Amino acid sequence: MGGYENGDSPAAAAWEGGVILGVDGGTTSTVCVCLPAAMPPPEAPGSVAVLSRAIAGCSNRNSVGENAALETLEQVMMQALTMANTDRSAVVAVCLSVSGVNHPSDQQRMLDWICNLFPRNAKFYVENDAVAALASGTMGKLHGCVLIAGTGSIAYGVTEDGKVARAAGAGPVLGDWGSGYGIAAQALTAVIKSHDGRGPQTNLTRDIIRKLEISSPDELIGWAYADPSWARIAALVPVVVSAAEDGDKVANTILHDAVQELAESVVAVVRRLTLCGEDGKDQFPLVLVGGVLEGNKKWDISGEVIKCISKVFPGVCPIRPEVNNR
Amino acid sequence: MGGYENGDSPAAAAWEGGVILGVDGGTTSTVCVCLPAAMPPPEAPGSVAVLSRAIAGCSNRNSVGENAALETLEQVMMQALTMANTDRSAVVAVCLSVSGVNHPSDQQRMLDWICNLFPRNAKFYVENDAVAALASGTMGKLHGCVLIAGTGSIAYGVTEDGKVARAAGAGPVLGDWGSGYGIAAQALTAVIKSHDGRGPQTNLTRDIIRKLEISSPDELIGWAYADPSWARIAALVPVVVSAAEDGDKVANTILHDAVQELAESVVAVVRRLTLCGEDGKDQFPLVLVGGVLEGNKKWDISGEVIKCISKVFPGVCPIRPEVNNR
Repeated sequence: MGGYENGDSPAAAAWEGGVILGVDGGTTSTVCVCLPAAMPPPEAPGSVAVLSRAIAGCSNRNSVGENAALETLEQVMMQALTMANTDRSAVVAVCLSVSGVNHPSDQQRMLDWICNLFPRNAKFYVENDAVAALASGTMGKLHGCVLIAGTGSIAYGVTEDGKVARAAGAGPVLGDWGSGYGIAAQALTAVIKSHDGRGPQTNLTRDIIRKLEISSPDELIGWAYADPSWARIAALVPVVVSAAEDGDKVANTILHDAVQELAESVVAVVRRLTLCGEDGKDQFPLVLVGGVLEGNKKWDISGEVIKCISKVFPGVCPIRPEVNNR
Repeated sequence: MGGYENGDSPAAAAWEGGVILGVDGGTTSTVCVCLPAAMPPPEAPGSVAVLSRAIAGCSNRNSVGENAALETLEQVMMQALTMANTDRSAVVAVCLSVSGVNHPSDQQRMLDWICNLFPRNAKFYVENDAVAALASGTMGKLHGCVLIAGTGSIAYGVTEDGKVARAAGAGPVLGDWGSGYGIAAQALTAVIKSHDGRGPQTNLTRDIIRKLEISSPDELIGWAYADPSWARIAALVPVVVSAAEDGDKVANTILHDAVQELAESVVAVVRRLTLCGEDGKDQFPLVLVGGVLEGNKKWDISGEVIKCISKVFPGVCPIRPEVNNR
């Protein structure tokens, strides 16, 4: 008989001690990894054997609604288990780090839901995705500040003694203008204003119309409301960055405003937690993650954000986590 | 036998020549009136006998989705017919003036839908609700400019020779910051920023928490995304106006910014249509409608908007239509 039989496959070996699921739930995509519960010693974290890694879409309830978010989370976890050649009965612990979890009541609702999916004695942790993002840059230690700017944005900090604070992360209705959604929505607004005769001309008009394959800004309103997904709007960020790199003034203003918003979020968190020490000069880690902050661009958004923050807190130590995707 | 019998009731009398339905579809509410098709002479428009008047919720497809919008429109029209003691077979014409109709394709989709609801030989007109709003202030003549600022906002103008132009009316994703939604969303953002330590303290925090019966700004995120209706957000405008009247600086800035946005929308339309004549000094009617522009407040938003516009176009003639609700 070909392939592994129960008892001698790597998956089955993992199965014996049970498995752990770790979920990073974002507004654009959700990733679930399945790990053996028997972990290697902490001094060799690089050797963690990821049994499987599954990817799905948005799991932010504030963007797609609670039902769709929970469906995505269940689906991605089940897929990771199947890929690891095991099933839900093997799960001993689940850590959900999900955007849109903002309040103890969000956490409780998700705990009530997840405990029915897995064995009774399994352990469950539900956090905002900022917690996983912070840990990804500090080798698991929850200390310092993290700034996420993907489709959504949030600044989140933790002190050595466990105090936490956050800023932004409130979504588009509540003005997250430094997020990918915020940047793109400002660009779309600039196109509409220019078309109406309320704003300056901008190359964003030409570039966005080309990207969306529509024929005129008149069609933007229909496009914008055809699908309420935040990720679909945020996908226009590269168009804004390119326009700014090519010298478009409107696009440059939008990016500079976003930098300001993002820096102010971090400064607010660091100040509230005194992460910078009493004299404001202590070093503290700042983990930067999310598509908006990824480098390799001439217009370096994360570089500008760090520059702004370091004017206030010179002890900021930026960290860009290298995430092992396998 | 009590009541009217067919043939001698006012409704049946109207029925003989057929009836006309007129629908004003907004983002908060939708009104349908049923009129006899045999109209009185235009020199006595006050004597139009409204057979019935039905009210329903939001019919803006961009806010509640196309299916819900069409359902609301059908429901309100059928209710008006029933109240007028007649049915859909009596309908000879329908005029739908509906917010969210922004593009010829929106119009066409709605025409395709409505012609299946009524007799084949009936006439159908589909327009943005700005057209009805303009006519409501100019005794039916389509000339001049209208500014609507309710839950949504739009500036819309028509020249004597039928050229049209519009500005704003693009909804929250595309930055209608002068609308009721826009004003309230800015206020909610100010509360979040203040709570995060990113913005100044404001009485809006206390007032909005009280109004929403929540216990802390932490709960605002959950509240904001629990229901995506724009009208629910816009319902907070009176709280912002009260706070501004009581001297709150943040609330005052929000209202002044909204005034600026609304005035700029009108100025853009008037300029593009040269409604103010070649020298910019001709008189033109400006019809003002919608909850945000209703007077009787110490903080007079429409007064401030008119002041701004008249600095650019001194010939502006503001009209506040008195709509007869019966």
